[in-house]
Amino acid sequence: MKKKVAIVGASGYSGEELVRLLLHHPDVELSAVTSRQSAGQTLAQVFPKFANLPGAKTLRFSEPKTEVLSKQADVVFLALPHGVAAEYAIPLVQAGCIVIDLSADFRVKSAEVYKEFYAHDHPAPEMLGKSVYGLPEIYREQIKKATLIASPGCYPTSVLLPTIPLLKAGLIKPNGIIADSLSGVSGAGRKAELDYLFVECNESVRPYGVPKHRHLSEIEQELSIAANTQVTIQFTPHLIPLNRGILTTLYLAPEKHFSTEAEMKALGEKITACYASAYGHEPFVRLLEGKALPDTKNVAGTNVIEIAWRLDPRTGRLIVMSAEDNLVKGASGQAVQSMNILCGFAETAGLV
Amino acid sequence: MKKKVAIVGASGYSGEELVRLLLHHPDVELSAVTSRQSAGQTLAQVFPKFANLPGAKTLRFSEPKTEVLSKQADVVFLALPHGVAAEYAIPLVQAGCIVIDLSADFRVKSAEVYKEFYAHDHPAPEMLGKSVYGLPEIYREQIKKATLIASPGCYPTSVLLPTIPLLKAGLIKPNGIIADSLSGVSGAGRKAELDYLFVECNESVRPYGVPKHRHLSEIEQELSIAANTQVTIQFTPHLIPLNRGILTTLYLAPEKHFSTEAEMKALGEKITACYASAYGHEPFVRLLEGKALPDTKNVAGTNVIEIAWRLDPRTGRLIVMSAEDNLVKGASGQAVQSMNILCGFAETAGLV
Amino acid sequence: MKKKVAIVGASGYSGEELVRLLLHHPDVELSAVTSRQSAGQTLAQVFPKFANLPGAKTLRFSEPKTEVLSKQADVVFLALPHGVAAEYAIPLVQAGCIVIDLSADFRVKSAEVYKEFYAHDHPAPEMLGKSVYGLPEIYREQIKKATLIASPGCYPTSVLLPTIPLLKAGLIKPNGIIADSLSGVSGAGRKAELDYLFVECNESVRPYGVPKHRHLSEIEQELSIAANTQVTIQFTPHLIPLNRGILTTLYLAPEKHFSTEAEMKALGEKITACYASAYGHEPFVRLLEGKALPDTKNVAGTNVIEIAWRLDPRTGRLIVMSAEDNLVKGASGQAVQSMNILCGFAETAGLV
Amino acid sequence: MKKKVAIVGASGYSGEELVRLLLHHPDVELSAVTSRQSAGQTLAQVFPKFANLPGAKTLRFSEPKTEVLSKQADVVFLALPHGVAAEYAIPLVQAGCIVIDLSADFRVKSAEVYKEFYAHDHPAPEMLGKSVYGLPEIYREQIKKATLIASPGCYPTSVLLPTIPLLKAGLIKPNGIIADSLSGVSGAGRKAELDYLFVECNESVRPYGVPKHRHLSEIEQELSIAANTQVTIQFTPHLIPLNRGILTTLYLAPEKHFSTEAEMKALGEKITACYASAYGHEPFVRLLEGKALPDTKNVAGTNVIEIAWRLDPRTGRLIVMSAEDNLVKGASGQAVQSMNILCGFAETAGLV
Repeated sequence: MKKKVAIVGASGYSGEELVRLLLHHPDVELSAVTSRQSAGQTLAQVFPKFANLPGAKTLRFSEPKTEVLSKQADVVFLALPHGVAAEYAIPLVQAGCIVIDLSADFRVKSAEVYKEFYAHDHPAPEMLGKSVYGLPEIYREQIKKATLIASPGCYPTSVLLPTIPLLKAGLIKPNGIIADSLSGVSGAGRKAELDYLFVECNESVRPYGVPKHRHLSEIEQELSIAANTQVTIQFTPHLIPLNRGILTTLYLAPEKHFSTEAEMKALGEKITACYASAYGHEPFVRLLEGKALPDTKNVAGTNVIEIAWRLDPRTGRLIVMSAEDNLVKGASGQAVQSMNILCGFAETAGLV
Repeated sequence: MKKKVAIVGASGYSGEELVRLLLHHPDVELSAVTSRQSAGQTLAQVFPKFANLPGAKTLRFSEPKTEVLSKQADVVFLALPHGVAAEYAIPLVQAGCIVIDLSADFRVKSAEVYKEFYAHDHPAPEMLGKSVYGLPEIYREQIKKATLIASPGCYPTSVLLPTIPLLKAGLIKPNGIIADSLSGVSGAGRKAELDYLFVECNESVRPYGVPKHRHLSEIEQELSIAANTQVTIQFTPHLIPLNRGILTTLYLAPEKHFSTEAEMKALGEKITACYASAYGHEPFVRLLEGKALPDTKNVAGTNVIEIAWRLDPRTGRLIVMSAEDNLVKGASGQAVQSMNILCGFAETAGLV
Repeated sequence: MKKKVAIVGASGYSGEELVRLLLHHPDVELSAVTSRQSAGQTLAQVFPKFANLPGAKTLRFSEPKTEVLSKQADVVFLALPHGVAAEYAIPLVQAGCIVIDLSADFRVKSAEVYKEFYAHDHPAPEMLGKSVYGLPEIYREQIKKATLIASPGCYPTSVLLPTIPLLKAGLIKPNGIIADSLSGVSGAGRKAELDYLFVECNESVRPYGVPKHRHLSEIEQELSIAANTQVTIQFTPHLIPLNRGILTTLYLAPEKHFSTEAEMKALGEKITACYASAYGHEPFVRLLEGKALPDTKNVAGTNVIEIAWRLDPRTGRLIVMSAEDNLVKGASGQAVQSMNILCGFAETAGLV
Repeated sequence: MKKKVAIVGASGYSGEELVRLLLHHPDVELSAVTSRQSAGQTLAQVFPKFANLPGAKTLRFSEPKTEVLSKQADVVFLALPHGVAAEYAIPLVQAGCIVIDLSADFRVKSAEVYKEFYAHDHPAPEMLGKSVYGLPEIYREQIKKATLIASPGCYPTSVLLPTIPLLKAGLIKPNGIIADSLSGVSGAGRKAELDYLFVECNESVRPYGVPKHRHLSEIEQELSIAANTQVTIQFTPHLIPLNRGILTTLYLAPEKHFSTEAEMKALGEKITACYASAYGHEPFVRLLEGKALPDTKNVAGTNVIEIAWRLDPRTGRLIVMSAEDNLVKGASGQAVQSMNILCGFAETAGLV
């Protein structure tokens, strides 16, 4: 018996990627897709690229109505803008659905922090405590029992996975962390805005949201949990001309000073062991070896995050670099991974 | 009477950009271009895009011979690989030519540091003291009297111009500086290597040369001079899919702590004044105002560097961002700017 | 005394390119720029890339009002959508201004054909006879005396310049012409539409407007004049992922059959002579020689159109290929070229 | 029992795509990959993107030796340059292997035509009669019994699939066909040549191989078979800045003249029926409906070819457009499809 799944807001980039993944998934049946502007059209009409997949010519977009959705689906993915997602999440959870929310609405546990970063009151503060932050490599056990999953943002995933094990192991200082991130344009969503026109993005690279990007709220929350102390970081996102991918470079300060070759070697071995212990058996984390450095083209279309690191004896810093596909490991793939865990499917089902 | 100028190594990207600039320059005559592989062909044949410019159909590439060049030209630009440039610079300077070298051969004043970063002995250590580092905004007076100009690298320019005034004014700490840079692919030169194929670079972003890139040697030399103390920085270059442009994000620590709004305002005013004093009258530095942030598309094809900055009260850091065209302000345009100063032309001649 | 020029609709891509060209032009003063959404802002604010040019910090965008414009400027460029341009052209011409219209409003001489292709009545049919089609290489004499210039579209320029001399010389059959064109995305204008988002255009190539694109009306009008008979052509535009450039491949049937090598040689010599006679002295037409074929990167940012051709003895066809920058020779550069001719400036003023 | 398969020349783009497809294929085991320059390295080392797939860390590249390969594999894919492939195909077929050759070596049945287009004698003319042209939609029955499959080129696939049914049905004239094709850069192979550098291809579009490209030989051979008469076509390839994809626009002359609306409707119905009959049940042909036109982004990474057509009553022509991924349906995916047919696997195995 396949689980029935629905996607609310299926016409954006994350929604489209969910469609792709769920149509191929062996254990689920995509039973509903909603989109206000595409209501009435089939999946094949809206996304010609999926036309040859089973069901694409019969499944039609509908208006998003929670009463209907709660009967059509066991699991509902919300690929909606921040603030809007909560309106759907609440009744759907109440109606007994499992909700996997790709927006930021339930990622930040503090309604106060939410308001600081999103500039409006949280729409459902009473539910903040119930959601699980859907980073499987960190919260696998909690995800198994969740009914509301707040699937992480693309930038946070690229920062958190490389950093959390080091913080937990006490290998780096929790203060002074810098994350410099480069994102492909799909990260901005399928929005008809001048800033994201081809001509404005091609042959262009630019920082934005400096110095206080919204994603800082969830990044700092999760790093603080890992470090068991309040963590404040520096985060600078940049827009670069590629469709998919995030490359993050992290500047970290090792707790232990290293100046001799022996100290450097010893520290390096600890870092290697730390990552191997955290991710050695993870199907979607690739720890690079030798001279290899992350490259978004090696993760495009996959749910894999690549991680590499270097110690710099000149500055005493640890540089960690990660690459992921912002729409897969940074959004829809990770959400499916959480569903797999929660529903008892193979964790890699539909993701390889 | 126009000055006669020659370009040695005119078939690479920097050389090509020099051709473009010098063919349009009102005060010079391009009298010779050399290239081993293109010898015998006209400029128009090698670069169809220049075919409609005066002289392009008659000027032919020749083999690079210093005896001949020294008679053909008053000023010789060297657009050659590191190590090779010195072989030409020495006899040409001795023959009385002004030499503007776009390679790294005479940028680093210490033969020891050169060897550490370039892995071979310096070919002409006795000339290191005679060259002037060709950053016009910093060394204008020295350039006027120079005979050998070591024109700065593309990354160094993007780091040095935003940082030097702050260091000189004592506004930032000389330690702990981080420069995170993103470069278009022309920065790698016109080299037939797999890594720079379209398919390998498009839809790709990757760090490289981590943690010890060669350009660190000249960056740290110049920052140390500005700070009047030994400076060691963190520098991470990344390759991104655009033809031209470097975007550098600098993470700096203000000397003065700021936590109140008043302190932040006061510090901001000092930074504004510092940059206005250093660059307010510079024709090729654009200090961005309001919400504007640097974007490579706004400097492509020009000799302008854009600079913007933000204070982050959450972390206590100063973030400075710059954008330049790596082939113009980062290479050939800057070299022409130095020539203009040295030869007594208008500094903007041929550059607007 | 510099002529005063104004640009109506200066915030689109053609308008922006006009700003660039006119700010650099030695014989004119840019006295007014209009844009509804940018009214009140300076040129430097709207286009940071022009901030270092003289006047950019003082000239402000205004609301487009013909009474005001007619006093501010001798020459007015209209970079407006089709249908809107005529509303400005009529009063401005009446007020004594020279009007150079970059829209399609006055290109088609027949109000009937206009209605067939643009789906609404022509707004000022009485003025159709007064406008001159602003293709300088073909209508230079008429341009000298014009008061209203209908500057050609980007696709038409890429088709007409290579074809007209062959038709006039009777070297090709007027029937059966096929033009297959590839355009960069700036050709679609600065419009906030999903189809032109970076993610939708990058890694994409697609035909559109098949089989009856609006530009056919002016192409066929001009080819018919050249051939002195009614010409109907096949035209297929495609959108490809580059900012600027149009590459057109033309499939033509020589009037004279060629099957032997001697016949092919003879025909080739006639074609060479035909193009040399038509364009040998044109500053903005580059007739490629030897093995060279057109490439948009060799014309980007310039007012040059490249033309090459090949005879195919296997099929008996003549293949002609052209490359131009759609925003320069295909729009704003050509409009400036017309102004130069009309105002008695050097034809290349501001264009090299 | 899984079939053992090997890839000779696995380090090029087609080879890499074969690796991707075969590692995911449910019915085969990738038992050997060869590459002179990568011999000794694991798949994971050469292609980090495949590192998480089973076998990637243990399977090592070897030197290509037919004696060894014939024992390691039941089916051998040759992803080698033209001329080289035959040297491997002959001994492997003799040793009892099934050989699927992605080069042009066995596509052209006439040694004479081969020499005309490839400029050297065919290396094994005696085997030309034995190979099957591996276009599954056309030669499915022959593929079932083949031992040597000449898998079609990327351009030929994009031309042949849309054209053959129309020719077979007598709906179009066999003479005067024009195919105008646009290819992504991966079509040039992973070759370290200046022409394919990022900077040379980005912001560039250019025709090449005009008017006699090598692929004409196999295109005309197959069209002649379909038309049952000698067919000569016009074919113009262009290089455009995308990684993957071919878009072909075909200009065809219907056998039956149409001038009235009724005639046009009748002809349109025949074309619809022709394509429906030929491809209505094909898993990898997508016949577009309504206003949809082909777009390479809708086929990227898949084995699907999209086809759409338009009748033009103004010119009397039929325009047919196709889009495919040059590395999948245009190369490796099609080769796997042939293997599936030949080995009795589901035809879509490993391809969805």
